[in-house]
Amino acid sequence: MRSSRYFLPTLKETPADAQIASHRLMLRAGMIRQGAAGIYSWLPMGLKVLRKIEQIVREEQDAAGAQEVLMPTIQAADLWVESGRYDDYGDEMLRIEDRHGRKMLYGPTNEEMITDIFRKEIKSYRDLPKNLYHIQWKFRDERRPRFGVMRGREFLMKDAYSFDLTAEDGQKSYNAMFVAYLRTFARLGLKAIPMRADTGPIGGDLSHEFIVLAETGESEVFFDKAFDGLDPMVEAAAGADLQPIVDEWTSHYAATDEIHDADNCPVDAGNLITGRGIEVGHIFFFGEKYSKPMNATVQGPDGDTVPVQMGSYGVGVSRLVGAIIEACHDENGIVWPEAVAPFKVGLMNLRAKDEECTAACDKLYQQLTAAGIEVLYDDTDTGAGAKFANMDLIGLPYQLAVGPRGLKNGVVEVKDRKSGEKLELTPEEAIAKLTA
Amino acid sequence: MRSSRYFLPTLKETPADAQIASHRLMLRAGMIRQGAAGIYSWLPMGLKVLRKIEQIVREEQDAAGAQEVLMPTIQAADLWVESGRYDDYGDEMLRIEDRHGRKMLYGPTNEEMITDIFRKEIKSYRDLPKNLYHIQWKFRDERRPRFGVMRGREFLMKDAYSFDLTAEDGQKSYNAMFVAYLRTFARLGLKAIPMRADTGPIGGDLSHEFIVLAETGESEVFFDKAFDGLDPMVEAAAGADLQPIVDEWTSHYAATDEIHDADNCPVDAGNLITGRGIEVGHIFFFGEKYSKPMNATVQGPDGDTVPVQMGSYGVGVSRLVGAIIEACHDENGIVWPEAVAPFKVGLMNLRAKDEECTAACDKLYQQLTAAGIEVLYDDTDTGAGAKFANMDLIGLPYQLAVGPRGLKNGVVEVKDRKSGEKLELTPEEAIAKLTA
Repeated sequence: MRSSRYFLPTLKETPADAQIASHRLMLRAGMIRQGAAGIYSWLPMGLKVLRKIEQIVREEQDAAGAQEVLMPTIQAADLWVESGRYDDYGDEMLRIEDRHGRKMLYGPTNEEMITDIFRKEIKSYRDLPKNLYHIQWKFRDERRPRFGVMRGREFLMKDAYSFDLTAEDGQKSYNAMFVAYLRTFARLGLKAIPMRADTGPIGGDLSHEFIVLAETGESEVFFDKAFDGLDPMVEAAAGADLQPIVDEWTSHYAATDEIHDADNCPVDAGNLITGRGIEVGHIFFFGEKYSKPMNATVQGPDGDTVPVQMGSYGVGVSRLVGAIIEACHDENGIVWPEAVAPFKVGLMNLRAKDEECTAACDKLYQQLTAAGIEVLYDDTDTGAGAKFANMDLIGLPYQLAVGPRGLKNGVVEVKDRKSGEKLELTPEEAIAKLTA
Repeated sequence: MRSSRYFLPTLKETPADAQIASHRLMLRAGMIRQGAAGIYSWLPMGLKVLRKIEQIVREEQDAAGAQEVLMPTIQAADLWVESGRYDDYGDEMLRIEDRHGRKMLYGPTNEEMITDIFRKEIKSYRDLPKNLYHIQWKFRDERRPRFGVMRGREFLMKDAYSFDLTAEDGQKSYNAMFVAYLRTFARLGLKAIPMRADTGPIGGDLSHEFIVLAETGESEVFFDKAFDGLDPMVEAAAGADLQPIVDEWTSHYAATDEIHDADNCPVDAGNLITGRGIEVGHIFFFGEKYSKPMNATVQGPDGDTVPVQMGSYGVGVSRLVGAIIEACHDENGIVWPEAVAPFKVGLMNLRAKDEECTAACDKLYQQLTAAGIEVLYDDTDTGAGAKFANMDLIGLPYQLAVGPRGLKNGVVEVKDRKSGEKLELTPEEAIAKLTA
């Protein structure tokens, strides 16, 4: 993509109302613009990142055996009356009346709706287990939306729902999601730690939050350094018993400041790591909490009718864009992990009015693009200094700078955004390095 | 995907409340379920089709130079007050108050919001032309939602918005979308005819509807048979003048029954084709209708400030699922065009309890999947008759039936769903045919 065409309205100034790094950087890097409090439009580069995150989340859900559906954003209120949550949910639920005066709402989560779909279609234990997920916009009418996409009102969430015959099978479904989450966050370039959590309004008695470590994270976290020795990229054959893996990851101490008690910590100081973190996922096993009141039952092997055992599993997809930036930035801007970078390479023509320089850039752009590399090509005639600053701000993994002086010596410059390392290479070497 | 695992709740009975073929077939084929009037959940197979259509739409928008963004579903009411449409839009607009009593709405379209984004970011003619599109759920509170996804309340639309300095440039942007639409509908396996249209509440004076031909379509349409000689898969170099192509496509008579007047038709009876059709796209050039009241201006080459020339371009993505079924079905079920089929092949094990038969099926499934073919593998132990009927209903392009009798003779059966042609082939020949 050529910068001269691309809609990428970057800002030199830091917006006054943005209090945290990810909010500031997403605005400055032209990724989002606010429509109303806590409601954002995603501009082209922001959307590219969002979609890459969404796709990794999707792949790991599919690999874990979950099946993708898509429930609507607007729900009828009746189902929530049936589950008993219509009144419980309070002001955070965006309540709506349609033109005929029917009570509707913008879904903040989908336990009721998926349970309704399930109970109408699935009648036998033979059709279990099932895990259905969707990646859909939700709305929670936060009293004080802030921190950009980290605490927005309209946000993109992946929510999965598992249905099993027995609590033992339900634990297996829970374990499959637990492992899928470890893999998902690792693939996103994040270090995530599962922590035992309160279940809150979702209910149930088994629940973990996944907290990613980020220097500028919202909470202080405390965890056993044993986590450093665990590999989140769990490779397990289909149907393998995941309990030992889950046991290993949950056997070590980890807690947010809300529940950590320094005087009663089971880990001695030498093994305790203190950091900051951001919640990006939350999984729940709640058994019959919804299936019982909503009468979601199947016929069991003995012919008796039993309520299904359910769990739900959320990932904050739009929140992850912010969380990744909190974990991956420096004083000059964003430092994207390669898996979610909007482009791999930022190619800069340092003298756009120089024909030879432009020809060399055009050729590099064509070669990299032909090799399947995503390139943002700054072909504009702004100054070199502004170009470098802008590339640092938007944080693509590699910068490829081409100027008349280097070309005279037959070289271009490749910079690794994360390490800052710069190499002078021939154009051929640069291509080889960037397509390796 | 194995049927034994897949969430595909097909129905033998025709649902009583479904009045048109696509609504009946989408319910029967387990593609959608209603959440509330005109609001649907997309089950796994329905969602696969929706995503394939969405991707073809996206690819043609990108190829035409449009850039993807994503605006939120919920909008602040102020922008609509500013454009003057807040009162005009009437009861179809879903109006909402948030917890602080602020007036919001669920976007039925996005002219105001995109104009607001544009005016805040783009200040110079040098940044034009721009065409920004998004594929997002919209809500229109139809008084009487019906016909399934054909006239739903919550629906998925692709809407693009072009911004140009002059009306001449605006016409070029319009032409690029016109050609993109011809290509999009052709790639979806549809025959679409552009018809001059009223602009209605969007405004402006240049507008075309794209109507796809379908025997069970909603409107009667009349058009010159000259359209049969035109190739919609226009191949044009970047920047090429598309006016001759648009002129060619708009020079022939085409009208819906709303405006067709048999007594004053410019085409003689021998050249007039009568059929039925469904509106799937609508494009508008409306110049300064929004840019003027909303003050979306740029600095022109002479330094003067001028309102931008705008157009908007919609495709009903979720509606297309229904439209394709209206155009592509027979008495036994859906007949998917290959480009949007949820799976290419339906593999049927006709005797799931027979070990040899199951081994042969498993091998075919493995080979086809390894070759990148999407296969729905009916590995359940229901009867052969039910399996055939179910496969006809869901309408995958090819059926591959494997039974003990055929295997004894070393053959399997490949059926082309559209032509009904059946071939007895060796498993190797079947693989070769299906992966060709």
